Amino acid sequence: MERLGIIMHGVTGRMGMNQHLLRSILPLRDEGGLLLADGSRVAIDPIIVGRNAAKIRALAEAHGIARWTTDLDAALADPDDTIFFDAGSTRMRAGLLRRAIDAGKHVYCEKPIAESLEEALTIARHAQKAGIASGVVHDKLYLPGLRKLAMLKRGGFFGRILSVRIEFGYWVFAGDLQPTQRPSWNYKAAEGGGVILDMMAHWRYVLDHVVAPVRAVSCLGATHLLERRDEEGRVYVPDVDDAFYATLELEGGIVAQVNASWCTRVRRDDLVTFHIDGTDGSAVAGLHRCWTQGKVNTPRPVWNPDLPQPLDLREHWSEVPETQVCGNGFREQWEAFLRHVVEGAPWAYGLMEGAKGVQLAELALQSWRERRWLDVGSLEESGKDAGVAGHAGDVR
Amino acid sequence: MERLGIIMHGVTGRMGMNQHLLRSILPLRDEGGLLLADGSRVAIDPIIVGRNAAKIRALAEAHGIARWTTDLDAALADPDDTIFFDAGSTRMRAGLLRRAIDAGKHVYCEKPIAESLEEALTIARHAQKAGIASGVVHDKLYLPGLRKLAMLKRGGFFGRILSVRIEFGYWVFAGDLQPTQRPSWNYKAAEGGGVILDMMAHWRYVLDHVVAPVRAVSCLGATHLLERRDEEGRVYVPDVDDAFYATLELEGGIVAQVNASWCTRVRRDDLVTFHIDGTDGSAVAGLHRCWTQGKVNTPRPVWNPDLPQPLDLREHWSEVPETQVCGNGFREQWEAFLRHVVEGAPWAYGLMEGAKGVQLAELALQSWRERRWLDVGSLEESGKDAGVAGHAGDVR
Amino acid sequence: MERLGIIMHGVTGRMGMNQHLLRSILPLRDEGGLLLADGSRVAIDPIIVGRNAAKIRALAEAHGIARWTTDLDAALADPDDTIFFDAGSTRMRAGLLRRAIDAGKHVYCEKPIAESLEEALTIARHAQKAGIASGVVHDKLYLPGLRKLAMLKRGGFFGRILSVRIEFGYWVFAGDLQPTQRPSWNYKAAEGGGVILDMMAHWRYVLDHVVAPVRAVSCLGATHLLERRDEEGRVYVPDVDDAFYATLELEGGIVAQVNASWCTRVRRDDLVTFHIDGTDGSAVAGLHRCWTQGKVNTPRPVWNPDLPQPLDLREHWSEVPETQVCGNGFREQWEAFLRHVVEGAPWAYGLMEGAKGVQLAELALQSWRERRWLDVGSLEESGKDAGVAGHAGDVR
Amino acid sequence: MERLGIIMHGVTGRMGMNQHLLRSILPLRDEGGLLLADGSRVAIDPIIVGRNAAKIRALAEAHGIARWTTDLDAALADPDDTIFFDAGSTRMRAGLLRRAIDAGKHVYCEKPIAESLEEALTIARHAQKAGIASGVVHDKLYLPGLRKLAMLKRGGFFGRILSVRIEFGYWVFAGDLQPTQRPSWNYKAAEGGGVILDMMAHWRYVLDHVVAPVRAVSCLGATHLLERRDEEGRVYVPDVDDAFYATLELEGGIVAQVNASWCTRVRRDDLVTFHIDGTDGSAVAGLHRCWTQGKVNTPRPVWNPDLPQPLDLREHWSEVPETQVCGNGFREQWEAFLRHVVEGAPWAYGLMEGAKGVQLAELALQSWRERRWLDVGSLEESGKDAGVAGHAGDVR
Repeated sequence: MERLGIIMHGVTGRMGMNQHLLRSILPLRDEGGLLLADGSRVAIDPIIVGRNAAKIRALAEAHGIARWTTDLDAALADPDDTIFFDAGSTRMRAGLLRRAIDAGKHVYCEKPIAESLEEALTIARHAQKAGIASGVVHDKLYLPGLRKLAMLKRGGFFGRILSVRIEFGYWVFAGDLQPTQRPSWNYKAAEGGGVILDMMAHWRYVLDHVVAPVRAVSCLGATHLLERRDEEGRVYVPDVDDAFYATLELEGGIVAQVNASWCTRVRRDDLVTFHIDGTDGSAVAGLHRCWTQGKVNTPRPVWNPDLPQPLDLREHWSEVPETQVCGNGFREQWEAFLRHVVEGAPWAYGLMEGAKGVQLAELALQSWRERRWLDVGSLEESGKDAGVAGHAGDVR
Repeated sequence: MERLGIIMHGVTGRMGMNQHLLRSILPLRDEGGLLLADGSRVAIDPIIVGRNAAKIRALAEAHGIARWTTDLDAALADPDDTIFFDAGSTRMRAGLLRRAIDAGKHVYCEKPIAESLEEALTIARHAQKAGIASGVVHDKLYLPGLRKLAMLKRGGFFGRILSVRIEFGYWVFAGDLQPTQRPSWNYKAAEGGGVILDMMAHWRYVLDHVVAPVRAVSCLGATHLLERRDEEGRVYVPDVDDAFYATLELEGGIVAQVNASWCTRVRRDDLVTFHIDGTDGSAVAGLHRCWTQGKVNTPRPVWNPDLPQPLDLREHWSEVPETQVCGNGFREQWEAFLRHVVEGAPWAYGLMEGAKGVQLAELALQSWRERRWLDVGSLEESGKDAGVAGHAGDVR
Repeated sequence: MERLGIIMHGVTGRMGMNQHLLRSILPLRDEGGLLLADGSRVAIDPIIVGRNAAKIRALAEAHGIARWTTDLDAALADPDDTIFFDAGSTRMRAGLLRRAIDAGKHVYCEKPIAESLEEALTIARHAQKAGIASGVVHDKLYLPGLRKLAMLKRGGFFGRILSVRIEFGYWVFAGDLQPTQRPSWNYKAAEGGGVILDMMAHWRYVLDHVVAPVRAVSCLGATHLLERRDEEGRVYVPDVDDAFYATLELEGGIVAQVNASWCTRVRRDDLVTFHIDGTDGSAVAGLHRCWTQGKVNTPRPVWNPDLPQPLDLREHWSEVPETQVCGNGFREQWEAFLRHVVEGAPWAYGLMEGAKGVQLAELALQSWRERRWLDVGSLEESGKDAGVAGHAGDVR
Repeated sequence: MERLGIIMHGVTGRMGMNQHLLRSILPLRDEGGLLLADGSRVAIDPIIVGRNAAKIRALAEAHGIARWTTDLDAALADPDDTIFFDAGSTRMRAGLLRRAIDAGKHVYCEKPIAESLEEALTIARHAQKAGIASGVVHDKLYLPGLRKLAMLKRGGFFGRILSVRIEFGYWVFAGDLQPTQRPSWNYKAAEGGGVILDMMAHWRYVLDHVVAPVRAVSCLGATHLLERRDEEGRVYVPDVDDAFYATLELEGGIVAQVNASWCTRVRRDDLVTFHIDGTDGSAVAGLHRCWTQGKVNTPRPVWNPDLPQPLDLREHWSEVPETQVCGNGFREQWEAFLRHVVEGAPWAYGLMEGAKGVQLAELALQSWRERRWLDVGSLEESGKDAGVAGHAGDVR
């Protein structure tokens, strides 16, 4: 059996460890390796890299990982490990990716891929020129709710899509009465906080891939809560947006209205809901569940303010059943990327796609400052890497 | 007992007849007249005016109205009728109001008060100079749902208000499969259609009076459906907005996100919902009902995409009970206006308030064209008419 | 790592063993010791003391406790053990505390701290003069239901509190038909029984700390059941109160009506419920759950005896969600006391607080005899021990 | 057919008109008169009396009452009218009753029968000496809920009754946010307000007749709300109790704990609930419904503060079914009183019973002032009138 050597960086953090190492790579390794189209399997052999030897060794020992190191250069120099993965801090990401690309590795990483659009484009183009395979995590696309929306669109349920409404958020306690449930850096500019930066990258790929490409944005941010308490109970003054209200134009005249707030009390189906209206039908999806109303099931409400609403407006919606098991989204995306590397399977989420998320966040912040609509220009076409078939040689 | 003579114009149309004549003025007349603060009553004596003699006479006879005419000039010349009301077409409104004002009448009318802000301001200033009392219908403020929101705000329930979300609309059938439920002029520019013109005037006074004054607007309109059928089943092409997506800034840093659409399938508590988030509590109101969630009842959701949402996010909301009977809003506003005229009772909805609705609709349309935020400048202060006490002499 | 040596007496009994030794001290020891504010930890090293060598050794061996003895004097003489804890019988408590205080130990104990107010005050003053830290168990304050009430008060939910209603109890079987569920000494004066003695100490600190200080009491006790059966099935005649009905005045004109009964069949939310009415809102809490009704959600019932109640009077109450995990209350209070000893952390439950519970029980019994209201005089101020900083030297 | 002439005074007020005239006497008249034990009927012939001729005549005409007058003396002088009824103001009641008794009439009236115990006893003794039949309204005894409790007691369900808990009241809005639902005189001493005066008379006869005679009382009143608005929206300062908290001793060692409050938010089965615990069973009744728990259905709760209550404590209660139709209570009591007058049927609610209600209210107020228990002395025995059989001659 062939094998794939994967250099994993930044897996001592929460996301890197839980979603990527423990729920993706190790199960893949332990369940017999990556399954290919021809029914054969490729063994998965990770090496984990970190600066703190004690920590990285403890992690390796706890989970039976044979290889670990603190020497990234040495790891990158080993030609038998052909993939580099990073889930470390955003600040270091682009630099690390460049080193890996220059060492001839395929690269896969968490979002955002860089701190600015310029830096993101530079690294994405560098990857394209190098001819390696690249990937960025697009985990929300693997959520059961969004998969159901994609299935509905694929099946022609919506007819022509007219509009989308994304409502995201919940009340994040300020820490005075109840303990807060998010880290304080989320609310500090100097530490990379702000909900626009956090969520716009997600909504970019969700809209692009599930509805239609984003073409323009108008965004208003707000800092609603003027005082919060940090992990130690100390009062601080948030200096970054804790909510935003945006309108987007998508290809085909579709309008998307989006809000995201850490200061809203939720009365809807889930912490995030996606409402799509089309000529032939509408759907509302949460993270997992999804409800539809086709044109023949659409009620005919009467506007009569003299009477309480006689209709139960949730009655004529019908749930989309679970017809397939959705595995962990991170693992499914790992498998897709690895099959792309090994056997040239289709792949749509390269670094240039990651750059688009950075682009939308930047434009949203600029729109807020300039109080106007901004067009979302097209970046160099990426989508599918050229020369994919050639990667298969990288399995050792 | 004294009496009030009221000239009513445009009451053969749906709104004018049902809400103003049949549910407001005639019951007021038949139940003994207008009740004043001192316990005495003033008789109500309407004269209805219209161009079609047959139609207006039939209406008068059907409802026992002693006086009717087709001669508006003669009616305005009678000094014993001191109030002029108009619910006719928008196009003629400003002209009619001017004639009534010049004849020394107090004026009351449906919204919008004019076809442009300039015309609206001209007539509002004209009314102010003339020293008469003026009024514009603000019916939504009398809806039980909005009264409950106003009560919540007055009671300090919200703490500092952070944001508002107004979602309005429902699916208006195109007339192909199901019969449509709105007139075709709503979708034609030449006939004064468009949802921005229709609804922005309402949201202006709702926001101004229930939340906080509107300070800026960014608005995107859309014509989602490309083909509809009219009352005779003929296909036509809508040329005006059938949906809009707006963001507004209110005094105090409050953000209002608004959508209104005749092309959306509804999955919420009512055909219109108002969601207000404040530091101490949130509320969601429909036309009649209203639900609250105070800070101590706010749940602490955990973002875990691996599991279906374990919380019922509608559970921790508590309904605001009905603690008082709300009569028909049009009639209540009529009584308030008449008491303002007769005994100088407080009144906040003069023509200048009506001009504000026209203003916001105009700015919203301009914002859509120019793709940018526009400030909502302050109009001349009106609110309460000067010289109110003097009106009492107009009871004959 | 520094260590704390704790002499534990009376831990072979049910409460002492389960709540104090097994659920508090041993887990604290095994999970790495007491966590301090600066992130460091102090090791916990208990020595258990009892008269029955076989019993105490067996307990030590079963739970891996290295140190045990039957010689209390020797234990108190060891300067490396700085804390003395007692959960033995009430009769011996004050004497034991005095010996420990005289040996220079900090003391912590179960309630009641003595058999009479005089004895309680004597030992509390002795502790104050000695300058040691003292503590009494106030476990009910750590119940989730009461924490939620405290959170509501801290958050200003109630406005001005008007009244409190505490209903406690359940049917304790007499042992004729069904087996009884409480020991027979609860119903015998000579063995310290009676529900006033048992519960008044709890309600004192609950009211003082969660609502407002108790200022006066009127109490009526009753011996409802005239015959019960003991553990061996022998009939006996209870000679002490098995129910009481009290009214209390709290600071600020608040009234508390309390009943406690072992002869009542329960139709309420929990075995004990606390109902607080305030100008702005009301709440009802059980041991764990808590429901609120704010002023805006208060219904407007109509008194109409001709019709069955049309309102569901439980409908407009909204539950306070779980927003934080509450650990075992005994352990949390142990940690607070130990941090008070080691690093001078805030502490409000010294021996003088314990004396207040004894005081209220005594006054309630006197009020019952004399059939009149009695004022609850202020005891010497205790609350926080003086010289706290100095305790830090007691970590060895 | 014989007839009964009834002089009715004070029937232009709300209670007198609705409950006594319209729902009791007129239906009795119109349905063929009073049915006697022997199957025969006596015609009912009321004459209504009032000071305002216009008002009393209008009432007579509206309901087809043949006889009305403003001359009470003349009415009392007519020997064919043998019964006098009063539902006028309390202030005038004792005087009116005396005039009627002196004119040889039987008397029936609303509660309270006088403004002080002394005045009440004087008129009750006067009635006894005169040998006429007397009656006072005891309407609560006719409520379905209390009838069910009486049925349970009669059937031996409770065994020996141990205790009673009466909880009465609801939140009466102060008139700031929501309109209030009680008249302002309820909160003013000078106008006879106060909840003790209002409710203690009711609880006296409920306890005496449904449970056991009241023997002693301890009561604390409170004025919880410091500001209210009257019918015209003017702020005023309540100067009388709007809540009370009482404990009562009943014959046989039974304890009754009572609260009544216009400042409580209700979380129970009805606006008033009566909870009775007995050795063999317990019951909770509202105005209409009633639930029981017998000794064999009593659950065995475990006090475990570490776990949320696992029992649904409302589960083991079983509702008492409706097995008979309860007519309007006022009418049923009228029929009983009239049969007592006409054919000597049993009757337990004479003026001396009415005096007991006045007595308990007076003692409760005194107990509040003096902060102690007060015994409820026995009044002269009344209960059943002597010489009842002789009344039958009064049917003309």
